[in-house]
Amino acid sequence: MGPHPAVAAIRLAVRRVLHDVVTEHNRHTGQEARAELAEAGATAGGRGGTLPDRPGTPLVLVACSGGADSMALASALAFEARKLPVRAGGITVDHNLQPGSGLRATEVVARLAGMRLDPVESVSVHVGRDGGPEAAARDARYAALDAAAERHGAAAVLLGHTRDDQAETVLLGLARGSGIRSLSGMAAASGPAGRYRRPFLGLDRQTARTACMAQSLPVWDDPHNIDPAYTRSRLRHEGLPALEKALGKGVVEALARTAQLSRDDADALDTWAAEAAGSVRDDDGRLECAGLAVLPSAVRRRVLRRALIDAGSPAGSLFARHIEEVDRLITGWRGQGAINLPGRVEARRQGGRLVIRQS
Amino acid sequence: MGPHPAVAAIRLAVRRVLHDVVTEHNRHTGQEARAELAEAGATAGGRGGTLPDRPGTPLVLVACSGGADSMALASALAFEARKLPVRAGGITVDHNLQPGSGLRATEVVARLAGMRLDPVESVSVHVGRDGGPEAAARDARYAALDAAAERHGAAAVLLGHTRDDQAETVLLGLARGSGIRSLSGMAAASGPAGRYRRPFLGLDRQTARTACMAQSLPVWDDPHNIDPAYTRSRLRHEGLPALEKALGKGVVEALARTAQLSRDDADALDTWAAEAAGSVRDDDGRLECAGLAVLPSAVRRRVLRRALIDAGSPAGSLFARHIEEVDRLITGWRGQGAINLPGRVEARRQGGRLVIRQS
Repeated sequence: MGPHPAVAAIRLAVRRVLHDVVTEHNRHTGQEARAELAEAGATAGGRGGTLPDRPGTPLVLVACSGGADSMALASALAFEARKLPVRAGGITVDHNLQPGSGLRATEVVARLAGMRLDPVESVSVHVGRDGGPEAAARDARYAALDAAAERHGAAAVLLGHTRDDQAETVLLGLARGSGIRSLSGMAAASGPAGRYRRPFLGLDRQTARTACMAQSLPVWDDPHNIDPAYTRSRLRHEGLPALEKALGKGVVEALARTAQLSRDDADALDTWAAEAAGSVRDDDGRLECAGLAVLPSAVRRRVLRRALIDAGSPAGSLFARHIEEVDRLITGWRGQGAINLPGRVEARRQGGRLVIRQS
Repeated sequence: MGPHPAVAAIRLAVRRVLHDVVTEHNRHTGQEARAELAEAGATAGGRGGTLPDRPGTPLVLVACSGGADSMALASALAFEARKLPVRAGGITVDHNLQPGSGLRATEVVARLAGMRLDPVESVSVHVGRDGGPEAAARDARYAALDAAAERHGAAAVLLGHTRDDQAETVLLGLARGSGIRSLSGMAAASGPAGRYRRPFLGLDRQTARTACMAQSLPVWDDPHNIDPAYTRSRLRHEGLPALEKALGKGVVEALARTAQLSRDDADALDTWAAEAAGSVRDDDGRLECAGLAVLPSAVRRRVLRRALIDAGSPAGSLFARHIEEVDRLITGWRGQGAINLPGRVEARRQGGRLVIRQS
C-alpha cells in the first residue's frame, strides 16, 4: 500500500524541487571542474578530459516554524533526501515575540532531529519595528535564514508557503494598487542565486495539514495566525472566505494563477523598459522626452520609475501618483516646475530632456 | 453659492467627457470637410480653402436605468450640454425581467424628458440565457443601446459606472484567474469608435447618490442589486466589505488603480506580441518554434493565443491551461502529439514549425 494521497502529494512536490537543486548543483560544480581542468591545460574547448565523477553533495535546509505547512515540508524533505544525492537539514527561527517561544524552538529542533535531519539549528532573532510588525518579523527571519544558509554552505532553503499563502499575498498586493508586480506574489525560487524554494506553492494548506495528520506529526498553531491584529490573519479568516462565498470556491486557485501570469508579464515589461531606457538617451545619457513620448505608457512609466530609483528614490516610497506626475512632464507638458520625489530626488524637464537628480 | 460638492463633482466629470466628444467630433467633421474640399480641388495639402464654420452638433445619449448612478449622470449631462455645442438625449432599457418594468421605464422616460433631454426613448428587450443571467442581460442591453445610437446618429453614449463598479469588475476578473487583461475592468471609452463613455469611473457610488439627493432627484433601487442570487450583488454587499474590513478602506481605490495599470500593461504586451508574431514566421507564414522559444513567456503565450483565435478557437473558451499545453510544444518538446483545442482547432509541432488548423 502506498502512502496517503496527501503525503504522496507533498513528497512529489519536494522531489521535483530537489531534482532541480541537484541538477543545478551538478551543472555548477561540473562547470567549475571543467574550468579548473581547462585552466590546467588538460582539455581543449571543454571536451575530453576527466571530470570528478562525484561532486560534493548539496545541502538543502528546511525553514520550519513547527506549523503544519513547514512540518509537512520537513517530513517530505527527510523522506526524499534519502533517495537522492542530497543532504537535508533544518532551521527554526525563534522570533522572541511570544512567551515560551524559546521552548517551542527547542521542541521543533528535537522534531527535526527526530526526522534525522542534520544539521538542525535554532536561531534566535530580535524583531525590530520597521515597516510594521509583519514586515519586521519577515525581515529578521530572512536575515537569519540567509546567515544560516551561508554558514552551512546550503544550496537551497525550502519554505513551506502554500497556494493559500500565495492567494493572500496577491490580495495584499492588490490592496496596494501599485500594479502587476505587486500582484505576482511569491516566486517559486527567490533570493540570492534562487536560494529560497517554495515546493508547496501549488498545494493547498489543507493538503499539508492532512499530510501531518496522516504521518502523526504534531503541529503547532501560531496564535498570530488567528490574531485579527494582523492583516494577513484577517484576510485569511474573514476576507478570503467572504470572497469565496461571493465568487465561488475557485478563488484561491485563480489568485495563484494570477500571480504566475502577472509575474511573467511584469518580467517581460521590465525587459522591454530596460531596453527602451537605453535607446531614449542622448549622448550625455539624459532621457529625451521625444523618445519617451512614443513609448507605450506602461513601458514609459517603468523607465521613469527605474530612473528615479537609480537617482536615489527609495522603491518602497515611490507610488503610482509620483510616477504619474513625472509622466505628465512628458505627456502633459505645459511648463510645470520641478517635481519633488521621495529620497530628495527632483525631476524636471529642461530643453526636451528629463533631468533627474538627488539634492 | 455654488452647487453641492457632489453635484459639482458629477458635472465636472461629465464636462470633461463632453469636451472630448466635441473635440473629436470637430476633428472628424473638419477632416471630412477638408477631404471633400480637397477632392473638389479647392485646396492643396489640406491648407487654405474654406471650411464650414459650424459642423453639425453632436448628439450625446445617456443610458439611464433610473438608479442613482445613471440619474446623476443624466442630470449632469442635461446641465452641461446647455453650455456646449452638444445635443443631449436619453435611453432607458426595459429588460422585461421584473413585474412592472414597463411602468418604471415610462417613469424614467418622463424624468429624462423633465430634464429637457431630447430625444428620450424607452427600448424594450428580450433577455436570453446565454452565459448566465447577468451576461445575457448585459448583451441585450448593449445591443439595444448600439441600435439606439445608430438610429439617432449619436456621437457618444454615457454610462453611469462608478469606481465601485470598477472595483467589483476587477474582482470578478480576478476570480477568472486568466491574467491581467481580465483585471483591467471597464475602459473609460469602449465600443465601436469609443462610443461608450464612462465619466464616473473615477467617482464613488456615494457621490452619485449624494448628488441625486442634493438635487431632489427620485432614484430607483434595482432589487437585483441586493439579490444574493447575483454574483455582483454578493460581491458588493459581502465580498468587498469583508475585504475592506481586512485590508482597509483604500481597497476600492486600489482595485480601480489596478484596473488602469493592468489595462496599460496588457495593451503594451499585446503590441509586443503582435510585432513578435510577424517576426517569428517562415516564408509560408508558419510560426517557427526556435523564434518562439526565445520570446519572453508572457509574449509567447500571447502570440500563441492570438494564433489559436485566428485559426477559429473561440476566445471565451480558450483558457490558460490550453495555452500552457500548446506552449509546451515549444518549451517542453518531447515528441508529444497534436493538441485538441476548443473550436475543433488542432495544434502540433512539425519540422520545427507550429502547425495550427481547424478541422
